[in-house]
Parts: sequence; C-alpha cells; structure tokens
Amino acid sequence: IEISNWKEKLNSSTTESNLEKFINQMKLMQFPNSILVDCTANDSVVKHYLEILKASISIVTPNKIANTQSYDSYLAIRETAKKHNVQFKYGTNVCSALPVISTLNDIISNGDEIIKIEGIFSGTLSFIFNSLKEKDSFSEVVKIAKEKGYTEPDPRDDLSGLDMARKLLILIRESGIPFELKNIHVDKIISDDAQNAKTVDEFFTKLKEDDKRILELKNKARQNNCVLSFIAKYENGEARLSLVEIDKNHPFANLHDSENIVSFTTKNYWKNPLIIRGQGAGADFTAVGILSDVLRISNYLS
Amino acid sequence: IEISNWKEKLNSSTTESNLEKFINQMKLMQFPNSILVDCTANDSVVKHYLEILKASISIVTPNKIANTQSYDSYLAIRETAKKHNVQFKYGTNVCSALPVISTLNDIISNGDEIIKIEGIFSGTLSFIFNSLKEKDSFSEVVKIAKEKGYTEPDPRDDLSGLDMARKLLILIRESGIPFELKNIHVDKIISDDAQNAKTVDEFFTKLKEDDKRILELKNKARQNNCVLSFIAKYENGEARLSLVEIDKNHPFANLHDSENIVSFTTKNYWKNPLIIRGQGAGADFTAVGILSDVLRISNYLS
Repeated sequence: IEISNWKEKLNSSTTESNLEKFINQMKLMQFPNSILVDCTANDSVVKHYLEILKASISIVTPNKIANTQSYDSYLAIRETAKKHNVQFKYGTNVCSALPVISTLNDIISNGDEIIKIEGIFSGTLSFIFNSLKEKDSFSEVVKIAKEKGYTEPDPRDDLSGLDMARKLLILIRESGIPFELKNIHVDKIISDDAQNAKTVDEFFTKLKEDDKRILELKNKARQNNCVLSFIAKYENGEARLSLVEIDKNHPFANLHDSENIVSFTTKNYWKNPLIIRGQGAGADFTAVGILSDVLRISNYLS
Repeated sequence: IEISNWKEKLNSSTTESNLEKFINQMKLMQFPNSILVDCTANDSVVKHYLEILKASISIVTPNKIANTQSYDSYLAIRETAKKHNVQFKYGTNVCSALPVISTLNDIISNGDEIIKIEGIFSGTLSFIFNSLKEKDSFSEVVKIAKEKGYTEPDPRDDLSGLDMARKLLILIRESGIPFELKNIHVDKIISDDAQNAKTVDEFFTKLKEDDKRILELKNKARQNNCVLSFIAKYENGEARLSLVEIDKNHPFANLHDSENIVSFTTKNYWKNPLIIRGQGAGADFTAVGILSDVLRISNYLS
C-alpha cells in the first residue's frame, strides 16, 4: 500500500472490515517476519493472539488485556511465542513510551530481584492529585481533568483505579512473580454514591458530596508537611493501591501535570531505588513507544 | 581457572604481571567470543583497545578515558569494533549501573533527537550539596564526605568538576553530536587558593575561606525558595557545569545521600522530560553494571 494515498484507498474500498477474514488472509500471505500491531483496547483481537503467534507472526500492542487475564493465559502467550520463535512486545502497557517495562526486564535478566515496586501509573490520577495541591475542590479538579481530555469519557473509569491496578499487575508479573488482578487491593477514592450514579452528569453532582472529606484529608496531610497522593505498591507478596499522605520531599510529591513515576527497590538498587519519571500518556507518545517495539523486533530479526 | 581457589593460585604464581604479554597471550589463545573487562581507571589498557578489538575481542569497561579523548579516537574505536564484528560496552561510564546510556541509545535508535540534557552525575557533589541543605559550613560538609569515603583521596579531583564534565561529554557524543571536552565550560566551585594548595591538609585550611561566600549563595537561594545545586547541562550546542539556584520543587532539588539524576528533553519527550534517578556510584553497584554489559554481549552472541 502506498503511504501517500492510503486514506483515499481505504475510503473507496468496498471490502467490509472483518477481523476473522483479515487474520486468515494474513496467515495465507505468509510474509516472512510479519508483525501484527494491535492498537485496539478491547479483547476482540486478543482472542486471536495465540493463533497469530502460532502462525509465526510477532505481536506489538499497547493493549493490556492479554497481560491482565489469568496468569495461566499470560504464560500461554509467552510459551507460544517462544515455541514459534516470534516476539510479543507491549512496552507501552505501563507508562506509555517511558522505558519502564524494558528497564524491569533488564533488571530481572541481570539476575537481580524485586523487593518493592511503587508508582503512579495513571496520567489522569496524577493530574488530579497534582492539581489538588493548588485547588480545594476535588470535584472541580476532576471536572477540569475531563475538560482537558485527561479522563475517559466517564471519569469513573480512571477514579476506580482499575487501569492502574492492571499496570501494577503487569509489573509484578514481569518481575517473575505469579499474581492475579483480584489479589490487588484497591482503596476507594470516591463514595459508592458517586461511583454508582446512573449518568456522568449525576456522577458530578454526587461527587460534590466527596469534596468535604477529601479536603479534610488534604488539610490533615498539609499539617504533617505532606501532600495527598494515590500510589500503587507491591511489597512482600502484597499489592495495594491507596490514597496516602507523602512527605513534601518524597520523589512522588513534586510531579507536574500528568507525569507518571515508578520506583524499583531491588537487591542491587537497595540503597536508593531506581526511579523513572516523565510523560506517561498521550496518543503521540504511545505511538512513539509502539514504533520503538516494532524497531526492537526488526533489530532482532536483522 | 577454578573460582574456589583463584586467590591462592594468584598468590602462589611466579609469573610477573605484564600487560603486553597478557594481551599477546590473549590474542594467541584465540578463544571464540572473548570479552576483555578493563576495570582500571588509567590509560595503560586503553592504549591497546584498538589492537584488542582488531583481534575480534569485545571490551566492557567502566573506564571513561577511551570515550573522552578526541572525538576522532572516539569514532575510531566504534569503527574498529564494527569492522571486526565485536562490541564495546561502557554502560557504567555515566551514573554507574543506572540505565542512563542504554536509555539514551534507545532514544537515538528510535529516531528521536536530543534537545536538552541536564544532570547531576557525581555522587560526591550530589552528597555535598544535598548535605549543605542541613549544614552551614561548606568545608565541614566536604570533610564529612571525605570521612565517609565519598570523595577521591584528594577531594579536589571531585570539586574540580572534571569527572562530571567527562560524563556530560559522553552523553553528548552518544546523542550523535561531535563534541570535545575543552568546549565544556566548568564553573569553579572553590577558590583558586584552595584548588592550588600544596597538600590535602592545606586545601582543607584554605577551603574555610570559601565558607562565607558559599553560605551567602545558599542564603540567597533560600530567600528565593531555592536550593544550591551543581548541575551539568547541554542545550543548543553549548555545554556547561554550573553552581545554580534551583526551585525547591525542581526534580533535582530533593535528592538524598549521593543519588544521581539525569533528565533528557527530546523531540518526543518534550512535554515533560524523561528522568532517571537513583544510586549512581559505588564498587558493588558498578560491578552489577559491568556484569550487565557482559550479559548483553553474551545474549547478542548466543
């Protein structure tokens, strides 16, 4: 396909989009060294991953689903890729293009061992709690985050912590530790009333009822020379996402905008943890990370 | 050689240590996939690098000398390694085992471009300026750093900034930019009197004369809600090491102990820079990084 006129070609095509046919066609063509790039966020392509890997086609994806289902299916993908001598790359699963998964892979392949993982893996939650340092109303800050396009269409998808829990799960598994999503404890940020509201508008109305409680937590933190932060943590076989007070000098306390951060304490990095920080979300930025995974596979193949 | 009794064997050996003979013997043995690990900090082994690479032997080293001589000799090593299909690895040249050089190499091989590099690459200077936040006497802080074994036997080797300038030079060159050490401007931290003292004891006596000036700088910074920091920076073709005021919320302001930090602003990482932070010095820690380079080469060879 010529790059210059792909859009016209696509628009004028009469072929209906059909995933099954696409995958069959891909397998029939038998191009050497093919890579499938799955840029969806749902499980319709994920269901075919094993079949695709068995056809000796590598996969690159920002989609977290394949890595956050059961640990058995996590292992099955790796074994299938290995058996068919292809690669499965998902460097953008955690903190987008930041070199978090690749650094963790290096740590483990050097024979080091993870003692503790801590991080803020959600650009949305990072933005909300960073903004809360300046503003008093939590619901207003969530509204600003939505207006800036930093949240999902329904901000509860971010506030539930599920996305951040999935990312922590992936880092735990990459550390060589079998773990299931259901074993990550997630503290509630917002009340059940707000979480269960029928519409997004109703959610914002209910959210105002949380403002007083969160302002009190924030003021209590301030008295202790701390700030409020929502942090993911794994240590000693336990994983938890919690709303905590952190000291103003803590590495996580002075993030700007929607920055992500991760801190690995290991047998080698014991004195001070290894910390990676930076922009961890955004379509452009994720595209950079996906391209980087594709280039890694092509370097490996060449 | 058996690992269990290497020390006895070494002590009982009557063979004199001789670098030329060692290298000739190594070349004669023609072991496949050999790697020479140069753990010296002087140039006696470096002089033989080209000869070793030409004998198809890879090199791993924490030694910065080969990378900080003229840009021509920097290029010559790379061309020789490439021609003879061997590797030259020095991941511990900057920030010890922290993944700084490897991350920069990935950034560049992804087609990204460096806009700005900033960092604190000296564990010694990091410790001194971190401690200065609590204490008022600069000379006392330098004395504590020496007593803790954080400085070279002569602390002026650290305070001159030369070691940190070399590390900045390596990062600039890894970014694909031809640069020479002499073009890095290094601000003086201490007075000429202290720098030129005849002995280390005399140096410490002279250093007390600097205390008042540095305390004034520190107090001025404090009035601006800032702290004093010694930072390496490359931007727009200019490289400089300077003693500057940085805001208390700056990512470099809250380092602990002797932590290193580096910040890469690139075309892709433009919104917020990519920051790596952690322990960046120490013999154990450097050994981890050297082993990691050896493992990278053996993964490549296998």
